[in-house]
Amino acid sequence: MGIVLGQNQYGKAENRVVRIYRDSARHVIRDLNVSTALRGDFSAAYTTGDQAHVLPTDTQKNTAYAYAKKVGIEQIEHYALALGRHFVDDTGPVEGARIEVDEYAWERIIVGGQPHDHSFVRKGQEIRTTTVTIDGKGQDQSAHVVSGLRDLVMLKSTGSEFAGFLTDDYTTLPETHDRVMATSLHVRWRYTTTDHDWGAAYDEIRQTLVEQFASVHSLALQQTLFEMGTGVLEAQSEVAEVKLSAPNIHHFAYDLQRFGLDNDNEVFHVDDRPYGLIQATVQRDDAPDAGRAWETSWSF
Amino acid sequence: MGIVLGQNQYGKAENRVVRIYRDSARHVIRDLNVSTALRGDFSAAYTTGDQAHVLPTDTQKNTAYAYAKKVGIEQIEHYALALGRHFVDDTGPVEGARIEVDEYAWERIIVGGQPHDHSFVRKGQEIRTTTVTIDGKGQDQSAHVVSGLRDLVMLKSTGSEFAGFLTDDYTTLPETHDRVMATSLHVRWRYTTTDHDWGAAYDEIRQTLVEQFASVHSLALQQTLFEMGTGVLEAQSEVAEVKLSAPNIHHFAYDLQRFGLDNDNEVFHVDDRPYGLIQATVQRDDAPDAGRAWETSWSF
Amino acid sequence: MGIVLGQNQYGKAENRVVRIYRDSARHVIRDLNVSTALRGDFSAAYTTGDQAHVLPTDTQKNTAYAYAKKVGIEQIEHYALALGRHFVDDTGPVEGARIEVDEYAWERIIVGGQPHDHSFVRKGQEIRTTTVTIDGKGQDQSAHVVSGLRDLVMLKSTGSEFAGFLTDDYTTLPETHDRVMATSLHVRWRYTTTDHDWGAAYDEIRQTLVEQFASVHSLALQQTLFEMGTGVLEAQSEVAEVKLSAPNIHHFAYDLQRFGLDNDNEVFHVDDRPYGLIQATVQRDDAPDAGRAWETSWSF
Amino acid sequence: MGIVLGQNQYGKAENRVVRIYRDSARHVIRDLNVSTALRGDFSAAYTTGDQAHVLPTDTQKNTAYAYAKKVGIEQIEHYALALGRHFVDDTGPVEGARIEVDEYAWERIIVGGQPHDHSFVRKGQEIRTTTVTIDGKGQDQSAHVVSGLRDLVMLKSTGSEFAGFLTDDYTTLPETHDRVMATSLHVRWRYTTTDHDWGAAYDEIRQTLVEQFASVHSLALQQTLFEMGTGVLEAQSEVAEVKLSAPNIHHFAYDLQRFGLDNDNEVFHVDDRPYGLIQATVQRDDAPDAGRAWETSWSF
Repeated sequence: MGIVLGQNQYGKAENRVVRIYRDSARHVIRDLNVSTALRGDFSAAYTTGDQAHVLPTDTQKNTAYAYAKKVGIEQIEHYALALGRHFVDDTGPVEGARIEVDEYAWERIIVGGQPHDHSFVRKGQEIRTTTVTIDGKGQDQSAHVVSGLRDLVMLKSTGSEFAGFLTDDYTTLPETHDRVMATSLHVRWRYTTTDHDWGAAYDEIRQTLVEQFASVHSLALQQTLFEMGTGVLEAQSEVAEVKLSAPNIHHFAYDLQRFGLDNDNEVFHVDDRPYGLIQATVQRDDAPDAGRAWETSWSF
Repeated sequence: MGIVLGQNQYGKAENRVVRIYRDSARHVIRDLNVSTALRGDFSAAYTTGDQAHVLPTDTQKNTAYAYAKKVGIEQIEHYALALGRHFVDDTGPVEGARIEVDEYAWERIIVGGQPHDHSFVRKGQEIRTTTVTIDGKGQDQSAHVVSGLRDLVMLKSTGSEFAGFLTDDYTTLPETHDRVMATSLHVRWRYTTTDHDWGAAYDEIRQTLVEQFASVHSLALQQTLFEMGTGVLEAQSEVAEVKLSAPNIHHFAYDLQRFGLDNDNEVFHVDDRPYGLIQATVQRDDAPDAGRAWETSWSF
Repeated sequence: MGIVLGQNQYGKAENRVVRIYRDSARHVIRDLNVSTALRGDFSAAYTTGDQAHVLPTDTQKNTAYAYAKKVGIEQIEHYALALGRHFVDDTGPVEGARIEVDEYAWERIIVGGQPHDHSFVRKGQEIRTTTVTIDGKGQDQSAHVVSGLRDLVMLKSTGSEFAGFLTDDYTTLPETHDRVMATSLHVRWRYTTTDHDWGAAYDEIRQTLVEQFASVHSLALQQTLFEMGTGVLEAQSEVAEVKLSAPNIHHFAYDLQRFGLDNDNEVFHVDDRPYGLIQATVQRDDAPDAGRAWETSWSF
Repeated sequence: MGIVLGQNQYGKAENRVVRIYRDSARHVIRDLNVSTALRGDFSAAYTTGDQAHVLPTDTQKNTAYAYAKKVGIEQIEHYALALGRHFVDDTGPVEGARIEVDEYAWERIIVGGQPHDHSFVRKGQEIRTTTVTIDGKGQDQSAHVVSGLRDLVMLKSTGSEFAGFLTDDYTTLPETHDRVMATSLHVRWRYTTTDHDWGAAYDEIRQTLVEQFASVHSLALQQTLFEMGTGVLEAQSEVAEVKLSAPNIHHFAYDLQRFGLDNDNEVFHVDDRPYGLIQATVQRDDAPDAGRAWETSWSF
């Protein structure tokens, strides 16, 4: 029996990179949180402390900022692909890279009815994300792009039921045919391409997600998620797979009868914890292999 | 020498009240976080444990939810005034009340180009607030309304300078005539009325704040704050005083010259801590007395 | 009618200063979060953007780090007094300063039964705090020290009642003579001295607070807080006033009878929000004037 | 081409279960955050909204609280195994379960030198965790226990180097032979048993981790992590694998020379972001198959 090093990766997390495009008076802003992680044969760093193969995380940080200028940040997928390929292609011991980017949206301040040239307010809804995974060198290199969003908080005040469920000795929940349904959506979708109109695709997918949430008469959050995923796949031929994670933010009708007041789904207490949590994948039955595209930081 | 009870208050904090108006198919949502605090002669509860004068915080919670139905939540100021007056007027030992409300904004989901009747997405920018203070009973009763907003994150990518400042032996900061200025604004303004078009005033004040941020060529964050406060007071005759608290969210130009790249205010690192913090009051020179309107939870 | 600048202050918030004493092999660590705020006549910065009186927040940051070496951090009160006096005494336009310090505690890692010389683990309970307020120059200068702690989470699983309270139409809470009482204590106490054995006093006060929490059979959280404050004042002749803020972290006995199980205060659900919040001052009836010692960041 | 449901799971997250043992005057407290997730054939809930196979998350919540009484919480692993097996064994459509538990530690308040019977203070350092995965029914059932800890914040003020690393065009970091090394450790270890002295093993493993952190002269955080994992595997025959995730909490020596002061690794600025992040697995070369033991919520 021996003790060995297993899977590992290292990098610089949460570089807060802001890029301003100021080629004209009408500035454009890109506001990112960038995390890089490298994979390869770094075993000597672990077993003997020999750093000869280790590109410092400080260097990775410098590179993340330098690439914001050198290749720019037209779209986060484009920037992350360039950064990941650089680490793998230009650093001998590096055999794989994972680049995660969060983007915070801004909108122009309206002054006198006109969008201002260089003043912005944080849009503040959902955060746009991408995770690019590069594996292997030269001809054998693969690249995966998984984009997504999170913290998209939605609520529908009717059009949601929950009934006909399985019961056991611990079941006390009554059936309901009219409830508030609310969630903070976390979605990621896997592209089958590395060359795409990323910004347009993002806007379309976001719109599909919110439209399906609004339009589907929901018999369960599960059903709503499936219709969201299906809607995305039907509209986006370059997407192979959609993963959705949705807390059920419980809105409990408050018992006002005790005070002589009706409450026909009008007054609710929003509870923090516990919350239901539904997680599902909707995919094409011929989806190509995902490689390491879905590996999270922790399951590496 | 004796030991005595000094200032005190108690209540129920952070009731997450949601009110849905569903009188027609076009639902309306009000999403609040409500905190109540009562003042009066509660000394027996402290010194002997006698609760005879203490209206339980659980009762305050029930009341907050009941009033969401009974008086409704047309505007948070209106709801908070009714709730505060109820506690003082209808509870013998209660001599004062402080009601704090945060409101989270929602917007309708657009489906097929039309705003949906009952499906919403969190707007997610700033949080609207109000603090109502009721003091005294009957003829002697005073009521103060301090409304505001927080977490309004703004950035201007040029039009901001910082130069000509005082220096000492610990000063190393270079002067600059072009920098990124960013903040997460926290503002509160004191009304001189308790009967107002609260929603319209809020929208106008928010617009004044963002317009001033955008329009003022800034020689210092202090100057921008003063112009914001002045703009509000000039436009709102019912506002006597504006308090502004603004972190300076530092955007440091990243040194890319080391890598052979120019960086003419294009690539920044956003730092979390430390941050500058500027806090100022702008007021009318004939502002009426504020009573306890500005007392925070901690300075009671 | 004119519009004027009212109360204001500015500074650098949350400087994360760590000081290592390494004069011997047995290192000592001080881990702080330091915020500075200056007061004085800075009106020109607001009204015309003239910075001639403004010592930059960047300079304040440099000074906070420099003073960690120059005067050291024997105790946070000592360090904060030195820093505050420096700003007021050595900077012409500065007429007052407020220095807030949080201290995070560490304990030595035990290796082979012995405390290690230079390896530490975060103690992680409460955070120790001080706020020093310096007002005026020369002979007229006053200095106030308000120290405290926060995030001291305590629970007693019996020995707490709540009964005999006032009721109204919205009261549904049953009386109880045995409940779990839990809080996350936030306390501040005002010293009447600026020269003291700060570390010993802190340890004694903390011990008084937890002992009183444990020992007092509680008829209400109010009573427990009063006994805490009284205990501190009785033991510490240099303390004039104690302010306590205590959320009531509700532990609700879970209804297990529905599943044929007894629950005699054995299984609880801990709720996040809403929570009771009790805030009280316990003071000597001959406490000297507090000046601006209690002004918080927001009520300035 | 068809669109199909892929991997999915659902449950109730973050049930805040507190269990008090009060069989004698000396109470014992267990303070948990419990999340349950079920797997099986729930496709009808997604595709047609048919809930006939779906045990509500509300029922899962009830069961988590009921099991705190019914089987008790001697150790979190024991409780989680019972809860997971119940869901799979007693619910027809359920084919797998994942139970995640966080435990918050408390210690007795010392009164008059004696530990109090029923009053506690939150210990507040690391959080103890377990994740139990149950897969399959009857003879084919497998059970995996992955326990761990997180938020164990450690620092060594010397005994850490970083030198001899790979450089490229973006490298500016100087080598160092004496630096502060600090991290907030997140570790998980996979047991090969489901019947163990869980509490003793936890204490031993925690002690090994902190001792290795203190004792190993570190040439890199990677090396320290490897020695931690090796130490655990050498001491614990029932552990097959250790995964460690460690942010490098950067402590930058502050440049005081500008102010005429030496700074020989005495005064540091602690930076929040970005931070290095090192993640590694240390395992036996004959470790048995992990099944789905390592699947996180997101990579399901």
